[in-house]
Amino acid sequence: MATNLLHVPKPQGLLRPLVVPERLLLGPGPSNVPPRILAAGGQQLLGHMHPEVLQVMDEIKAGIQYAFQTQNRLTLAISGTGHCAMEAALLNLLEHGDTALVAVNGIWGQRAADIARRLGAIVRELWKPPGEYFTPQDIEEGLVRHKPLVLFITHGESSTGVLQPLEGLGELCHRHGCLLLVDAVASLGGAPIFMDQQEIDVLYSGSQKVLNAPPGSAPISFSERAREKILRRKTQPLSFYLDMGWLANYWGCDGEPRRYHHTAPINSFFSLREGLAMLVELGLESSWERHRANCAQLCQGLRDLGLELFVKEEKARLPTITTVRVPKGYDWKEITAFLMENHAIEIAGGLGPSVGKVLRIGLMGCNSTSSNVDRVLHGLRDALRRCHRSRL
Amino acid sequence: MATNLLHVPKPQGLLRPLVVPERLLLGPGPSNVPPRILAAGGQQLLGHMHPEVLQVMDEIKAGIQYAFQTQNRLTLAISGTGHCAMEAALLNLLEHGDTALVAVNGIWGQRAADIARRLGAIVRELWKPPGEYFTPQDIEEGLVRHKPLVLFITHGESSTGVLQPLEGLGELCHRHGCLLLVDAVASLGGAPIFMDQQEIDVLYSGSQKVLNAPPGSAPISFSERAREKILRRKTQPLSFYLDMGWLANYWGCDGEPRRYHHTAPINSFFSLREGLAMLVELGLESSWERHRANCAQLCQGLRDLGLELFVKEEKARLPTITTVRVPKGYDWKEITAFLMENHAIEIAGGLGPSVGKVLRIGLMGCNSTSSNVDRVLHGLRDALRRCHRSRL
Repeated sequence: MATNLLHVPKPQGLLRPLVVPERLLLGPGPSNVPPRILAAGGQQLLGHMHPEVLQVMDEIKAGIQYAFQTQNRLTLAISGTGHCAMEAALLNLLEHGDTALVAVNGIWGQRAADIARRLGAIVRELWKPPGEYFTPQDIEEGLVRHKPLVLFITHGESSTGVLQPLEGLGELCHRHGCLLLVDAVASLGGAPIFMDQQEIDVLYSGSQKVLNAPPGSAPISFSERAREKILRRKTQPLSFYLDMGWLANYWGCDGEPRRYHHTAPINSFFSLREGLAMLVELGLESSWERHRANCAQLCQGLRDLGLELFVKEEKARLPTITTVRVPKGYDWKEITAFLMENHAIEIAGGLGPSVGKVLRIGLMGCNSTSSNVDRVLHGLRDALRRCHRSRL
Repeated sequence: MATNLLHVPKPQGLLRPLVVPERLLLGPGPSNVPPRILAAGGQQLLGHMHPEVLQVMDEIKAGIQYAFQTQNRLTLAISGTGHCAMEAALLNLLEHGDTALVAVNGIWGQRAADIARRLGAIVRELWKPPGEYFTPQDIEEGLVRHKPLVLFITHGESSTGVLQPLEGLGELCHRHGCLLLVDAVASLGGAPIFMDQQEIDVLYSGSQKVLNAPPGSAPISFSERAREKILRRKTQPLSFYLDMGWLANYWGCDGEPRRYHHTAPINSFFSLREGLAMLVELGLESSWERHRANCAQLCQGLRDLGLELFVKEEKARLPTITTVRVPKGYDWKEITAFLMENHAIEIAGGLGPSVGKVLRIGLMGCNSTSSNVDRVLHGLRDALRRCHRSRL
């Protein structure tokens, strides 16, 4: 053995044990993972083509169809995080020169526009200030003006805490020959969404929000209209890893014998399956109601602390992530650090267009409980008392 | 709540518990995951920007630098499986119209050529029959003829069981103004590789082979030459998720404050960290020797069973995955199914150009033991006795 060739020595940090502290994750995600889901992810591996794994994938598909309320056959989980699903949606739908209209009222629209530009699409943007949502009139004006093939819009804008009303948007898009692509990473399971009735053409989410599984897999579904757009492509999608033709086959969506495509993150699938199973057991209506009630309790408590909610209209507040203005005279970083150090609670500052403006508190899946609301309000009260307040 | 809108009922499969049988995974990967790594992946989540997670990422980086034997600062793990790392390597290196030379002697070259074509590169291919490797003369002819900017070659060809000698290829490429990109998904930790001394410009691997972590993250590293090629790009990489500029920042490789890019698969990182830690504890030389010795024992045993090794030259045999010709008169599917059903052992048939020609037996990381060799040989002997043999 050529021992003398080992010019890079053993790194000392890896000779020490891994230490992971327990924290209450009330930021915009990931949220805490219940023991049952951790146990599923900690199962021994199987091969990516073993019948038991293919069955788990079938169960995931059925779970996503339930969570999305869709009967689309092209329904599966991407082998990556929510961002990867955003990319998968855009790169399968769009070809070089296609026009995409992106509704930007926070970071996710910005990101979708960035990705679509990289793909060579002609990108048009509709803008709203952070904290606001789009009306059907806003959307219709954009559709008429830009004649896009795809409209991107965010259901749960986790950077601003806005819940986008989706009623009528699907119909509107279809009347104008456009597909409706919706990001529900932060909202799925926490707020009602009905893919089929709302005529959404592509919908995706993440595993690490309401589903309470670790990040690493992302549910996605395509309507027949979207599937046909993909089938009509003149060019191959720019990615092999995310090529929906290959993925549809591996996930058993095309009626053909399943072929090896890539080695899937098998134990992420085990966790996702369990997260979906817990949502199915609880039921969508109960899950929506749970998030609504705990969010309402949180909002009331924040107001009682004298804080100002960032999203004015109650119906436009995302039930999973609440944004509150950084109280005057405080440094948001000091508040989040105080909660982490003194209460082992994560809450977050803003992101993208909301940086420096807001604090974000997430109550997702198993973390959406009345006692967690009490805990974070108690921590915030303590922070407001003990953090430095500049003289105004 | 709009209960009547729930037209997709609860899927019954998700109301039953998840059942995962124990199997000995001696296919080409994933391999079994030791309890210590499963436990690391089963730790409670932390946020993707928490200092403990950033420290785990730093430790992963140091572990990859050790495993790759490199001091490259642009060293990190991709948030996806090995295939995703292949795509990350190609899409960051290549721009539309760049010429890539791909050495094809199995499925991985085919895949790399497919991906490079999707990216708009001019793809030239060097071919060898499955089971053979490329000589420096083969490579030099290709470099002279096609003047590529990037050469792709596979170190461990898991579809054919070939170990590609890398000596001199880096120098050769650099003499011809070309970057050397090496796929070491199936070989890393099982066969010597020295990124810096061998002048490899981009090297990547997977988590689920010798490192014995679940699939879902993929080590990758870029030389200064490769980094400069990326910095000189005239166009943005076609993916945001895999954009090395963003990833370099998130992984603390660019000296700037770390910014949010995407929600990383945090517990996959915990597992990968632990897989690297176990490799560091064992030491590269011991790991190489372990794979060499157990592979030699397996090859001898296969010959004793009257089977014919697919790769003729001993030095060209991949120590992690051994290919053996399907014995005359047998159906390979019946043999793999027999081992699975009667011995709970996975071995695999061929893949891509080796389909129907070979059986593949993987001994990777903790699965590379003398007793596993005995176990699979015992199973094979049983299969040869009890599976149907057609009358020739």
